[in-house]
Amino acid sequence: MDPFEYAHKHKVVWMAQNTNLLPTTPKIKEAVIKSLDEEEYNNYPYKKGIFGLKEAILDDLGLPDFEVILTGGGTEALYIIMRAMLKDNDEVITSDPSYFIIHHFIETSKGIPTNLPIYKNPWKYTPEQINEAVNEKTKMILLIDPINPLGTGYSRDEVKAICEIANDNNLFVLNDITYRDFADNHTLTAEFAPERTIIAYSVSKNCGMAGMRTGALVAPPELMHGMRVFNTNDLSINILGQRAALAALETKNEWMPNVKKTTRNNQKIIKKCVDKTDGVFLPVYPSQANMFLIDIGERKIKPEELQNKLLYEHNIFVRAGNYVSKSFGNRFIRTSFSIPEEGVKKFADVFPRVVEELGK
Amino acid sequence: MDPFEYAHKHKVVWMAQNTNLLPTTPKIKEAVIKSLDEEEYNNYPYKKGIFGLKEAILDDLGLPDFEVILTGGGTEALYIIMRAMLKDNDEVITSDPSYFIIHHFIETSKGIPTNLPIYKNPWKYTPEQINEAVNEKTKMILLIDPINPLGTGYSRDEVKAICEIANDNNLFVLNDITYRDFADNHTLTAEFAPERTIIAYSVSKNCGMAGMRTGALVAPPELMHGMRVFNTNDLSINILGQRAALAALETKNEWMPNVKKTTRNNQKIIKKCVDKTDGVFLPVYPSQANMFLIDIGERKIKPEELQNKLLYEHNIFVRAGNYVSKSFGNRFIRTSFSIPEEGVKKFADVFPRVVEELGK
Repeated sequence: MDPFEYAHKHKVVWMAQNTNLLPTTPKIKEAVIKSLDEEEYNNYPYKKGIFGLKEAILDDLGLPDFEVILTGGGTEALYIIMRAMLKDNDEVITSDPSYFIIHHFIETSKGIPTNLPIYKNPWKYTPEQINEAVNEKTKMILLIDPINPLGTGYSRDEVKAICEIANDNNLFVLNDITYRDFADNHTLTAEFAPERTIIAYSVSKNCGMAGMRTGALVAPPELMHGMRVFNTNDLSINILGQRAALAALETKNEWMPNVKKTTRNNQKIIKKCVDKTDGVFLPVYPSQANMFLIDIGERKIKPEELQNKLLYEHNIFVRAGNYVSKSFGNRFIRTSFSIPEEGVKKFADVFPRVVEELGK
Repeated sequence: MDPFEYAHKHKVVWMAQNTNLLPTTPKIKEAVIKSLDEEEYNNYPYKKGIFGLKEAILDDLGLPDFEVILTGGGTEALYIIMRAMLKDNDEVITSDPSYFIIHHFIETSKGIPTNLPIYKNPWKYTPEQINEAVNEKTKMILLIDPINPLGTGYSRDEVKAICEIANDNNLFVLNDITYRDFADNHTLTAEFAPERTIIAYSVSKNCGMAGMRTGALVAPPELMHGMRVFNTNDLSINILGQRAALAALETKNEWMPNVKKTTRNNQKIIKKCVDKTDGVFLPVYPSQANMFLIDIGERKIKPEELQNKLLYEHNIFVRAGNYVSKSFGNRFIRTSFSIPEEGVKKFADVFPRVVEELGK
C-alpha cells in the first residue's frame, strides 16, 4: 500500500501536503449547501466563473487591471502557463529544492528547468545567482514566494532586484504565491514587473480547501490572450468549489489571522523538539509558509525510512525529501503545521524517539 | 450582455447546453453533504480518485481492464488526449457539425481536423466517407456517438465497420460517449478495437452534474501511460464532484430510465410543433441523445436572431448553429430537451410564432 493510500484509509496527523486543516469559516459550507439546494450544479457554470469571484481574487491581490482564468487548483494554472509560454529548449530559472510538479510541466512543454541549488544559506535564490544563470535561452523566472518546501520568503528588496533582472533580460516572472497568506510581509512581482508577471493563485492552502481544487491563473491582459488558448477548463471549474472560494475570500480577513497565529505557534513546538534532538536542524525558522524542512543529514537516516516509520507506526504523515529535491532530498523531511496543535504535539513527542531509533 | 451572462442572471428555459435538468437522485446531494460534514475538502483527494470511483466508471463501461484518469469534465479528457496523442500535422477524422471544442484542442496540439460534412442523410459518418478521408497523415478517428449536436447514433455494424478502418490503418479511435445513456442501443468501439480505443467519459449530462465538472479519460493501460504524462489534474479533481459522481453511478439504473423517458417524450412535443411550422424540419428524429437540430434554412432566418429573440423576449435559451458547425451553422439551431416538460411546452408554444415573426 502506498503512503497516500494508507493515509487516506487511516486517521493520521496530516503534515505531508501543506494543507490547512485549521478552522476557517462556516460560511464556506453554507455557500456550498446553498448552491446544492438551488441545484446549480445541474448546469454548467458561467464560463468566466460565478459573478464576483474574479473580482474577489483580483481584490485579494490588489491588481484590478489583471485578468483571471479559473483553474482546477493553482497547479493547473502552472500547467497552462508552461504549455502556453514555453517553446522547445526555453530555459526557466528554477531552484532545487522546489515544487517539482512545476518542473514536470516545464519538461512536458519541452522547456528546461535550471534547478539552481538553494539548499544553503540564505535558503533561497540570490539575485546574483539568477543573474549568473540567465542566458539567451532563458525565458522565465519561477519565483515561488514563500518557497515550498523551505518556507523562506523574499524581502521587498529581493523581489525588486529579481524583477529588475527580468526587466533587463526580457523575461517572464512566474510568481507562485500559494503560501503568501502565511508570510509576515509579501511583495508581488507585479509591483516591479507588472507586464511580465504571471501569477499562480490558489485557495487550497490558505483557505483550507485543497480538496475543492479551486485556483486561478492571473496575468495582465496582454499576456492572458495567449494563455486562454490553452485553457483546460473551457466550461469552467466545479461550481461548488467556486462558491466555496468566494465565501472564503470574502471572509478571509476575519479568520486568517487565527490560522496564521496557530501555524506560527505550531512551528515553535516543532522548533523546540528539533532543538533538543541531536544532529537535526531547521534550515529556515521561522517559516514564512505553513511548512518547513527538518534536516536529518548528519544522522545518516534515510528520509523515506523516517517518513514510513512515522506513518506506519505512529500515523503521522510527513514527506520525504526526494519529493521536493533531486540533489538534496536525502537530507531532509518536509513537514507542514497548519493543523490542530494536538497533532503537532504528537509529532513533537514522537519525532526525537523515532530519530534515535533510526539513527543508531 | 452576452447570452450566457443574460441566461445566468435570469430564470430561463435552459435548452442551450445539453444539460440534464431532470430529477436524478437525492443521493447525490447526500453524498456531497456527508463529505462536507467530514470536511474532506480540507485535504487533497487521493491522487487516483476516491476509493470506488474508478471501479464504478469501469463497471459502467463494462471495461474492467481499462485505466482511468479523472478529469474536470469529459472536455478536459479531450484536451489531454489531443495534447498527448497528436504530433504536428497529424490528421484527425472529424465531422461538421461536431462539438468544436474538440477541434480546437486538435488545433492547439497542431493537428488537423478533417471536418467531413455530415449535414446530410444519414446525418453521421458513413464508413465509406471515413475510408476515403484516411491517408498517411491520419492518426485518429473522432467518433462522437451519439453525435452532439445532431443526435444521430451509430448501429453496432457501423461501429464495427469504423473500428475495422481503424484497425486496418493503425489509427486511434476517440470514442466520445457523453450522451450514451440516452441512446436506445450503444456499442463502444472498445468492443472491436480495444487496443486503439480512448474514451472521453462524462457524468455531466447523463447524471445532471454539469456544474460539478467530473469526467474521465478511459483507455487501455498501454495507451494510458503516455497520456498520464499530460494529466492536468496532478492532485486530482474536486472531491465533492467525485462523491457526487460515485453516488450517481451507483444509482444510475434506478433513475436513468425515467430521465430517458421524459427526454423522449419531450422530443415528441417538439416534433409536433416543428411539424406544424412551415419550412422547418428535424434532420434526426428520434434523437439518440438529449438534443437535436431544428433546420430553419428554408425560412432564411438567421439562427443568431432566432436564438436571441427566444432568449431576450421569451427567456428560452437555445443555441445558434455556428457554435457546432462551420459550414452549416447558418441553417439550424440546436435545442436540448432533458428538462422539465413545462419548459418544452413553453418552447413548443413560442417557437412557431417566433419563426413566423422572423421569417417574413
